[in-house]
Amino acid sequence: MGCLTGEILKLTIFGQSHSAQIGVVLDGLPAGIYVDEAKLQAFLDRRAPGKNAHSTKRREADEVHVLSGLVDGYTCGAPICAAIVNGDTRSKDYEALRDLPRPNHADYAAYVKYGRYHDIRGGGNFSGRMTAPLCIAGGICLQILEKKGVTIGAHVLQAGPVQDDPFDPMGVDPAVLQALKAKDMPTLNEQAETEMRWEIENARMALDSLGGTVEAVCQGVPAGLGQPMFGGVENRLSQLLFAIPAVKAVEFGEGTGFASLRGSQANDPFRLDGEGNVRTATNRCGGILGGISSGMPILVRATFKPTPSIARQQRTVSLSAGEERSLAIEGRHDPCIVPRAVPCVEAALAVGLVDLMLQRAAETGI
Amino acid sequence: MGCLTGEILKLTIFGQSHSAQIGVVLDGLPAGIYVDEAKLQAFLDRRAPGKNAHSTKRREADEVHVLSGLVDGYTCGAPICAAIVNGDTRSKDYEALRDLPRPNHADYAAYVKYGRYHDIRGGGNFSGRMTAPLCIAGGICLQILEKKGVTIGAHVLQAGPVQDDPFDPMGVDPAVLQALKAKDMPTLNEQAETEMRWEIENARMALDSLGGTVEAVCQGVPAGLGQPMFGGVENRLSQLLFAIPAVKAVEFGEGTGFASLRGSQANDPFRLDGEGNVRTATNRCGGILGGISSGMPILVRATFKPTPSIARQQRTVSLSAGEERSLAIEGRHDPCIVPRAVPCVEAALAVGLVDLMLQRAAETGI
Amino acid sequence: MGCLTGEILKLTIFGQSHSAQIGVVLDGLPAGIYVDEAKLQAFLDRRAPGKNAHSTKRREADEVHVLSGLVDGYTCGAPICAAIVNGDTRSKDYEALRDLPRPNHADYAAYVKYGRYHDIRGGGNFSGRMTAPLCIAGGICLQILEKKGVTIGAHVLQAGPVQDDPFDPMGVDPAVLQALKAKDMPTLNEQAETEMRWEIENARMALDSLGGTVEAVCQGVPAGLGQPMFGGVENRLSQLLFAIPAVKAVEFGEGTGFASLRGSQANDPFRLDGEGNVRTATNRCGGILGGISSGMPILVRATFKPTPSIARQQRTVSLSAGEERSLAIEGRHDPCIVPRAVPCVEAALAVGLVDLMLQRAAETGI
Amino acid sequence: MGCLTGEILKLTIFGQSHSAQIGVVLDGLPAGIYVDEAKLQAFLDRRAPGKNAHSTKRREADEVHVLSGLVDGYTCGAPICAAIVNGDTRSKDYEALRDLPRPNHADYAAYVKYGRYHDIRGGGNFSGRMTAPLCIAGGICLQILEKKGVTIGAHVLQAGPVQDDPFDPMGVDPAVLQALKAKDMPTLNEQAETEMRWEIENARMALDSLGGTVEAVCQGVPAGLGQPMFGGVENRLSQLLFAIPAVKAVEFGEGTGFASLRGSQANDPFRLDGEGNVRTATNRCGGILGGISSGMPILVRATFKPTPSIARQQRTVSLSAGEERSLAIEGRHDPCIVPRAVPCVEAALAVGLVDLMLQRAAETGI
Repeated sequence: MGCLTGEILKLTIFGQSHSAQIGVVLDGLPAGIYVDEAKLQAFLDRRAPGKNAHSTKRREADEVHVLSGLVDGYTCGAPICAAIVNGDTRSKDYEALRDLPRPNHADYAAYVKYGRYHDIRGGGNFSGRMTAPLCIAGGICLQILEKKGVTIGAHVLQAGPVQDDPFDPMGVDPAVLQALKAKDMPTLNEQAETEMRWEIENARMALDSLGGTVEAVCQGVPAGLGQPMFGGVENRLSQLLFAIPAVKAVEFGEGTGFASLRGSQANDPFRLDGEGNVRTATNRCGGILGGISSGMPILVRATFKPTPSIARQQRTVSLSAGEERSLAIEGRHDPCIVPRAVPCVEAALAVGLVDLMLQRAAETGI
Repeated sequence: MGCLTGEILKLTIFGQSHSAQIGVVLDGLPAGIYVDEAKLQAFLDRRAPGKNAHSTKRREADEVHVLSGLVDGYTCGAPICAAIVNGDTRSKDYEALRDLPRPNHADYAAYVKYGRYHDIRGGGNFSGRMTAPLCIAGGICLQILEKKGVTIGAHVLQAGPVQDDPFDPMGVDPAVLQALKAKDMPTLNEQAETEMRWEIENARMALDSLGGTVEAVCQGVPAGLGQPMFGGVENRLSQLLFAIPAVKAVEFGEGTGFASLRGSQANDPFRLDGEGNVRTATNRCGGILGGISSGMPILVRATFKPTPSIARQQRTVSLSAGEERSLAIEGRHDPCIVPRAVPCVEAALAVGLVDLMLQRAAETGI
Repeated sequence: MGCLTGEILKLTIFGQSHSAQIGVVLDGLPAGIYVDEAKLQAFLDRRAPGKNAHSTKRREADEVHVLSGLVDGYTCGAPICAAIVNGDTRSKDYEALRDLPRPNHADYAAYVKYGRYHDIRGGGNFSGRMTAPLCIAGGICLQILEKKGVTIGAHVLQAGPVQDDPFDPMGVDPAVLQALKAKDMPTLNEQAETEMRWEIENARMALDSLGGTVEAVCQGVPAGLGQPMFGGVENRLSQLLFAIPAVKAVEFGEGTGFASLRGSQANDPFRLDGEGNVRTATNRCGGILGGISSGMPILVRATFKPTPSIARQQRTVSLSAGEERSLAIEGRHDPCIVPRAVPCVEAALAVGLVDLMLQRAAETGI
Repeated sequence: MGCLTGEILKLTIFGQSHSAQIGVVLDGLPAGIYVDEAKLQAFLDRRAPGKNAHSTKRREADEVHVLSGLVDGYTCGAPICAAIVNGDTRSKDYEALRDLPRPNHADYAAYVKYGRYHDIRGGGNFSGRMTAPLCIAGGICLQILEKKGVTIGAHVLQAGPVQDDPFDPMGVDPAVLQALKAKDMPTLNEQAETEMRWEIENARMALDSLGGTVEAVCQGVPAGLGQPMFGGVENRLSQLLFAIPAVKAVEFGEGTGFASLRGSQANDPFRLDGEGNVRTATNRCGGILGGISSGMPILVRATFKPTPSIARQQRTVSLSAGEERSLAIEGRHDPCIVPRAVPCVEAALAVGLVDLMLQRAAETGI
């Protein structure tokens, strides 16, 4: 039941890493929205592996096929279904793993949950590959948001020991956000980019992997989105972000940093901008007050655990024999998935924001 | 629409800070579960203010009245509704604030959302007071979990600059967790407790407030709870935790710390315990793999921003006059709500776990 | 989990026939809607028993108490909770029935479902009494619809062998609908009313009961409400109508009569009205095409089985002894609940239409 | 948002009549269920047109392709996605209709809802073709139910003026139900079958169409399924049945016939069967008491309006010109869709029952 989310915009993701196809159904978009399929494909290509030395050597075609919901490029009111045909899948690599759960992977949990029926190939429905359909949905939503004046950008704030400069919480130049989208190692600081590449290559050489943090900003979001309690912007976006495999922490604004602050340091004073609009003089709350968007940029960070697939010997157990064993994971794996996760974070946020905007319309339209 | 959550266990919270009553409807519990109302009241009393020098001077009766769903103490299959009659509410304190939104409060967002119809008294439905109904639901769920061998405990891991010792991720002595529940400043380290009290009092004297972090552990949780993608344990628990006002970050296991780790440091090797059960030798993932509970203790941290109500002069704007103004918030406010938030975190986790356990039953029972 | 419904307007009903209170939580209404509580009470009084010789002799106070969500009569954005304190409940009447399920009541089904924990008193949460909270929600929604130019009216189309005149599917004079609301036996035809009263009294004297049909019309409903497939107007309204105990059939437009028609008889030709609006020349479809409202009056019929509580000897079984027994139901029961069900049908339709209108706003507002 | 339904078993249908593909996502089935794809295809073939003289001359391949969720025929825990590639679609037939809404079709409602973006080809997402994905989901669920001892059968109870014999509400010989599945005009009475064929051919010759009624029975359904109020068996099954285009009435047990009955005639006395199980001596309630399954056969009837597409001249309006026009619908259309609707009714009921059974597991499993 976990493949479905959304209040107004219902998002359903199907597929496993090595199933015939993977895809998404997106229901609830108004009719008459133009979806630029070339642009959608270009967005999806941003998460594709195989583009540089650091990422997995698998070549994923990841060509989006729209099965329904668009007529001549426009939404027709029916749900959009879009799918990707799975091509280069080497399923034999995985069968041996069914008995030996990989540390920090979902194998053991899936074994408890689904028994021997779990699709172990490529991680099944727990695979990072399932972020491709999320990116299809997100790519569509990003196009919608763009027309509404909402821009989402993201970068690798941290990869292992290397930190990038953080976004200015008061707002980031859209040209800077645009430039980040063209980079396979999206950072604000060039030195950080260089060091990150070096650290990732270093981890690979050490048969190891790196964790990291993606920071994202959503600009132009109107004030008033979200509901109190369980329907707040933070509740909804975090629920989406934790759907990206390996995310283990989600923060808004100062996030964990709030623990060390005093109220006088944390409070964002209200002020008026030149046009008489209510703004805040600082933006430590990351654009969200009481769970509701304030009109300031929404700032969010998602921290990823290191890629669990490492080539070093690791301890595990044989589920059939009930004995401890050791395991070295072979195959093609990213030593740091954080750069590729950047568009996934953008996608999750875009889906959430469109849903929140549609819900806001229901609040005001009657 | 935000007052409702849950997949199988549907939780609906109603009320505003100063409405006639506040309460909760809890639908989906099996019939025949005994609810000890005295114990429920005792749990609710843990979040009540006015118990010590640090917390707000308001006296909230917070007496639980069960309106439906229990017969002779047992669930009868009908939804449980339980409410609290609001007593000591000084509504006049708030009317002046309608025009001057308090920094870091929901006032401005609520104004955008509800206009002049927002119930400004006490923060309306954005008030921290709305965690009382959450605690009613949580208190019931904690009793259910206890019978299933699941224990939840929590402490103040950080309050401003002071840090408590963290929980041992491999497990905490239940007696220690029990002892924490008896404390109004629940810490593992006595020195930390003393320092936290001092820091909080210090902040109060400085007309200021403190943020902090609650760390919680859920022990005895069976492996296999949660769904991939949007229905994972992390997705569901974070969605609940962000419903507690002021929470701005949610972390599982190493959380944000994963960004600095390598895979070889982050991976939890599998091993067998004395009885041949699969366990992990470390628990950096906080008991959750691929969004699914692994059978290890679930570790979660929620960071709270400092209480926004401070008595210092702050800058704001007059919404009616369109002018910048200054504001000093009077009234009775906790300089640090983190100690009182401890049972709220336990409550949110308990509600989420019971829902996940019911959902797991649906997966296996047919 | 069955106490909750709605897509945008979330409706939660709590209580059992003899619980301390019964009530409703209504979440999702925009802020700023005025609710006339006296008018709401007057609506609720329409379903109250004890008004005439035909209905049960129980005196239900059924006084609505608004616990939250309204400030000075206006919705504030927080969920409305409204409750009724249960007064005149003779719980002792029912305890003996726990072992002897009453034919056509929910007793046996509830026993299977909840075991000995079912609240047998007054039928527990299966009681017709649970339509009182539905009427609170419906009464609020009717006020909203009225402001939007939508009128709902209903009458007893059939009670046992007596038939009233049907509504004109092209539209009913609002004054006629208004007049129906003032009647405790709402019929269009006075002769039918007289005969129905006689038949009901006759059934009572024979220690028996009568079934019947309520016909309702919703006028002024804008075209375009509802979604294809599972979210159509018929899907949603029927889901609500079957929540009224004893409803066993729901029909739209010609309903079951369509089975005997040819397409040339059933099709409603399109035409233009005087102002150039698209209308249909007939309205056999009852204002719904493809599950979507067409702008014509929505016509719906709900058929009720006869009150199962009759004073005659009936055959049943002792659940404890595993033996067949006979049973004569004592107590105060309506020989025909259909007249009292009229406002319940209006309420269910009103809740559904407001939800559909809010959903429609989400489709068009972004 | 209407393409999605279900509480535990989430069903999402995508596609339009002439989109590249149409299909279904089914999420929430336990892992380890074997799905016989040949049997599934055979079930789907039952609704396919073109099998006899009466149905539309279109040849729909309707070959099911499973895209995900099955590994070696077994559910793996991931959602099942299955699709049909649309082949023989003559889209040009429809473009002219965009301006001239067909009476009793969804064209006008869709125009109001989606404007010029509605996919008019073949009726878009309002097409009866969308029952093919429903039948995929239903075919899978029927296989699950069969293993659980639940049998669903259905027949054409009425087609225009011709009536078949009704099912015995106390139960139908499974061999009889099986035999019905092999017939393209499934009736119990051979004379009725002959007359129905004659009436349908007669209607076709008269450029007209026929309505009708499908009666279905679900046998072996355990007692205790469903929830009170909005989650009852009737609420859930009717919500599914009204998703089949042209359904305008849904009845359970005696249905509309209850209006004319007295309680003493309508009540089903309880008795014990040979093994001491509680049963009822009659089954006028159609196996549902208080919205909950009673263990007796569930009896349900769905009435279909006549096929709106008739070749006769009909009155309509030009939406662009604002003028009244006449229209004769060309193309290939069933004069009576009721025989082909029989498997669709079975499918809808099967999906609903599996969802209810999974929900029941959640009630009892913790």
